[in-house]
This record gives sequence, structure tokens and C-alpha cells, in this order.
Amino acid sequence: MILIVALNPALDITHHVDGVDWVSVNRPSAVHVRPGGKGLNVAAVLRTLGGDVHLLGFAGGHAGDVLAGELSAADIPAGFTRIAGETRRTFAVVDTRRDETAIFNEPGPVVSGAEYATFLACYAEALPGSAVVVLAGSLPPGLPSGTYADLITMAARAEVPALLDTSGDALLAGVAAGPAVVKPNAAELLAALGRGGPWPGSGQSGRHLPMATRNSQSGDRPPVRVLADAASELRDRGADSVVVTLGADGVLAVTADGTWLARSKPVAGNPTGAGDAAAAGLAYGLVHGYSWAARLAHAAALGAAAVAAPVAGQVSLAAYERALGEVEVQSWERS
Amino acid sequence: MILIVALNPALDITHHVDGVDWVSVNRPSAVHVRPGGKGLNVAAVLRTLGGDVHLLGFAGGHAGDVLAGELSAADIPAGFTRIAGETRRTFAVVDTRRDETAIFNEPGPVVSGAEYATFLACYAEALPGSAVVVLAGSLPPGLPSGTYADLITMAARAEVPALLDTSGDALLAGVAAGPAVVKPNAAELLAALGRGGPWPGSGQSGRHLPMATRNSQSGDRPPVRVLADAASELRDRGADSVVVTLGADGVLAVTADGTWLARSKPVAGNPTGAGDAAAAGLAYGLVHGYSWAARLAHAAALGAAAVAAPVAGQVSLAAYERALGEVEVQSWERS
Repeated sequence: MILIVALNPALDITHHVDGVDWVSVNRPSAVHVRPGGKGLNVAAVLRTLGGDVHLLGFAGGHAGDVLAGELSAADIPAGFTRIAGETRRTFAVVDTRRDETAIFNEPGPVVSGAEYATFLACYAEALPGSAVVVLAGSLPPGLPSGTYADLITMAARAEVPALLDTSGDALLAGVAAGPAVVKPNAAELLAALGRGGPWPGSGQSGRHLPMATRNSQSGDRPPVRVLADAASELRDRGADSVVVTLGADGVLAVTADGTWLARSKPVAGNPTGAGDAAAAGLAYGLVHGYSWAARLAHAAALGAAAVAAPVAGQVSLAAYERALGEVEVQSWERS
Repeated sequence: MILIVALNPALDITHHVDGVDWVSVNRPSAVHVRPGGKGLNVAAVLRTLGGDVHLLGFAGGHAGDVLAGELSAADIPAGFTRIAGETRRTFAVVDTRRDETAIFNEPGPVVSGAEYATFLACYAEALPGSAVVVLAGSLPPGLPSGTYADLITMAARAEVPALLDTSGDALLAGVAAGPAVVKPNAAELLAALGRGGPWPGSGQSGRHLPMATRNSQSGDRPPVRVLADAASELRDRGADSVVVTLGADGVLAVTADGTWLARSKPVAGNPTGAGDAAAAGLAYGLVHGYSWAARLAHAAALGAAAVAAPVAGQVSLAAYERALGEVEVQSWERS
């Protein structure tokens, strides 16, 4: 069983608008509501692959009820700790004319010490039956930045490898607890280490570029060398291996056995949730004892399939298998 | 009792963001959730004035539960007809740095014929005890544009005057049923009659102007003469009187007894819901037998108080009374 921890899940609301008027009233042509947040996306992709998953986390209020109901309908086993606060929403405005997306992420409800203690009991109970634990997403207000580190330490005592996908202080603190894999994207990796761009020859900041360009990071992605160095630093700080998602440029893994770069064919679509699909591929490969090259191929193919899917956190098996046949994985050495 | 009909209420979600990035991820500094839609704003303002109100309409799903709970907590008596669909959300992004607001209004749930029949029975039962009925807001999908006209005809049979605040075909059809008052804003009035701008000397379109400028309509408001002519046309089509809200430029009333223009002192703030506050003032004045000049003064003062309030649909009595002392009402004649 793959245990997935989603401490700050969300109800994702998406509005499609043909040409957004940012200073007046808009009438969306389509409205979608679905469970969201990194952990839930990982769980959904693993379910599509036929994975045996169990989701733990916090849910509260009416949004929490909707979340629990939708997961049940999607056949994703979940045991949420009920909290007094209301589960957060994320709100995405997709401008279908300009091919741009604005995302508004609410911070999430405050989790009390007593609520966290209840969750910890569920977590401790689930660990012995788990082959891997995926810790994904931001921490809700009220939980200290060392929370993931504590959960990784508990997993290590139960001999369960941990995959950590978060950012900022929670990432750095978690790395020190020695997870099997950490999976930041390029921006999260450099931000956690306090390193910014621009990098020579890498172009301008993408702040006002269209979404597709921004997410492919072709406009402002640092060179692979810079990212490999930063990933090595996270290994020095405690992580067994570091996998960096590079958007359209693929997936980079820095491990004790070597460094690899996997590239899939370019895909048009919505990059939201592509990193979560890649995390699902890494967890799946870890559980099934795949080589690093095979894990990366699956991660890159799932990322590409997620971009091609119309809804974040979903992949089609056909798109995944097609992408898998086109992925190139190469060993990478510092020049 | 003032009966208020809100056929398409909403859960208003507002995000405050300091400098929105319209092509990437934002983390709102503040999130507010409250019952919304024109009818609910009118009810809230009337409750603040001490009015005896009763709200009827449709509510469904989790958002409908939140709506009913919040109204109960706000001491606003409401009898919602439960529907199978989910009550809509409206989403507002307030850019606190640029002083701009983008609003995203979901269309609302489809209302079935059986659900409408249940509502009609509640409406017919409530009419005899009502001094006035306020019909406010858009129609949800599934209800024909003649719906307000039917409700006005039923009210007339019960000798209850009706105040109609809607737009488009629902406005035109409703006018033909002879309501006591219709209250469009300037843009709704002209759009319903198929008349657009620009008007000589009235400046450019406000499409890319800041919110405050757009809502004051000083940039693209047609001359009072044009609006008075359009209002007269609505009277010719059946409305007893027509009140047009002009944003910061005040309130215009065209009635059988004459034409008046009320102006309050300019107020900085959020104009969302100011028209609803003005509608509440008109209903209150109608119930209490105020003269047209007094009704307009109250409507303009409540509109100004709503602009000054941080949350749409709310007014402070202090701001209202202060604004009331500063309103100027003048009889207006065509030159």
C-alpha cells in the first residue's frame, strides 16, 4: 500500500472565461469543482495506475464534506481527521482566449495540536502496512515547519521510505530527516536554498509571459548544471536522492548511483498537476523496485500525460503509455 | 413585512491579493465568505435599518447549506426552496495594490419546473402579509425571462407593490407587468433597450480604467438627458416609476409626479452592492410612505454608506446617517 499524506488538501474550483476582464464582471462559460492539492493529485494518478493507495490528512467544514464525498466517488480510500476549520479552496481562472491561467491558493485552516495528535495516531497505525509514504503539499497554518521531518523520522523507524514533495522551510527541515526521495521543481529547489536567477543565457524572467512559456521554464530556467549542484546540496543535507521536475524540459535525478535526465516529447496543455503526476510515478517505481532510469521514464511520461489531460491531477492510461514510448533517459555528467 | 425574492442567490468568496499575478500563482492575504447576490444584499441592508423582512428563493447543495446557515446567524428570516442543483458562487479578486476588482459570477444551478412550483406556493402564501415585494437579481438557468413578470402579476392581484431590480430580457418582460418601481443602473437600463455609447462629451469606454473610475461612471456615463429618456421609455412600457442608479453621480427617478436627481458626497471604497443598498432604501421609503424626494435621499445615502463599507451588502448606520445629512435632491427638468 502507498500511504499518502495530504495535510492541506483543497477544493479546486476552476472557471473558464473567454477573455478575462480583470477590472470588472466576468461570466464563466464553464465551472469545474474537484478535490485538489498535491497529495490528492498523487493519489488520483496512482489509482489510475491501479495502485493500492490510502490517503490521510485533514478535512473540515462544508468544503471538507465535498472533498470526502468526491474522493469516495472516485474510489480513493481516505481517512481524514476532521478539524474545526474549513478546508481551503483553490481558485483557478483559465483565460481560454489568451491561454493564461491565474491561480489563487487560500492558506488553509488552522490545525490545532489536538487535531494533529489525532492525525498522528492514524499515521502511526497506517505506517506498518505501507510500502512507501508520500508527503505532499504545503503545511496548513498551525503546524510547524518541522512537521514533515517528524513524519519522515516516524516512517524511518517503521522502515517505510518517504517521498517528500513540498517547498520552503518545510522542504529544508524535511530533507534533514533523511527521506528516500525529495521532489521539488526547479523554482522550489533554488528558492529553498536561497538562490535566485537570472542565469546567464537563460533569458528573462517569465513574470509576464504566457502560462505555457512560464511553465515550460524555457524562458527562465537555470542551466541543468546549476540545478544538479543544488540537488547535490540537498543530498548533502540528508536526502537519499533528489528528483527535480523541469517542466517541459523533463526530470532530473541526482542519486547515490548517478545522475539522470529524462525528457518526454513536448505536449501542449495545462501543466498544473504535472509535478504531482511525476511524484506518483516515482512512488510507483520505488514500490515496484524499478531502476532509477525506469523510475524517471515513468515520472516523465506521467508528467507529459498530465499536461495533455484537460483536468489537473488526471492522466489517461493511453496518453501515459504513448508518452512512455517516447521518453529518452540519459545519464548526465558534469562537464 | 418586506418580501424579498432571491431566485439566484450566491455564496460570495472574496480574495484580497496585494498585486495580482494574472498568469501564475497567488496567495491571498485575506479570504472572506458571505451570502451574496442582489436579493441577499437588499435583505441585509433592510435588516440593518430595522426592517421586517422575509427572504424567499432557491438553495441547494453544500453552498446552499452555508448560505442558509449564514442567513440564520445574521438574523435574516429566510425560507429557501431546496433544489437538486448547487447554489452558485461568485468570486471576487480584490487587488489591494492596484485598487482593482475582478468578479467571476457563476451562472447558477438549473431550477426545475417542480422546484419552481414549490417556490410559487411559498410566494403565494407570503404575499398577503407583505407591504412590498422586492424582486432582485438574475434568473437562474431553467426559468424563463417572463418569470419576474409572472411574480409581479401575482403581487398585483394581492395588491402588493413590486420593486424590480434585474437586467436584460427579465427586466424588459418584468416592466410590461407594471411594477411600482424598476431600478436598473445606467448600463442595465441602456443595454435592456439596446442602446450603447459612447455619448458625445462623455469620454472613452471604461474597459481598462481602474475600478473606482469605472464604477463612478464618470468616464463613460451617458448624459442624464439620455438616461431620463430611456427611463421614460420604461415607464411607457409599463413601469409606474423608474429609478436609475448612476454610481458616484447619484440616483435619478423618473415618476408620474416628476423627475428628481439625488447626489451624495463622493465616497471612496468598494462600489459592489451599492445599487442593492439603494434598492433597499427605495423599498423602505415605499413601505413608510415617504415622498419621492425623501425616498431618493435615503437611496443615495444608503448607496454611499455601502461604498464606504468594507464588505458588499453591508452598511453602517452611522455612515448612512452622515451621508443622509449631505444628500442633495433636486427636481430635474429636460432642457
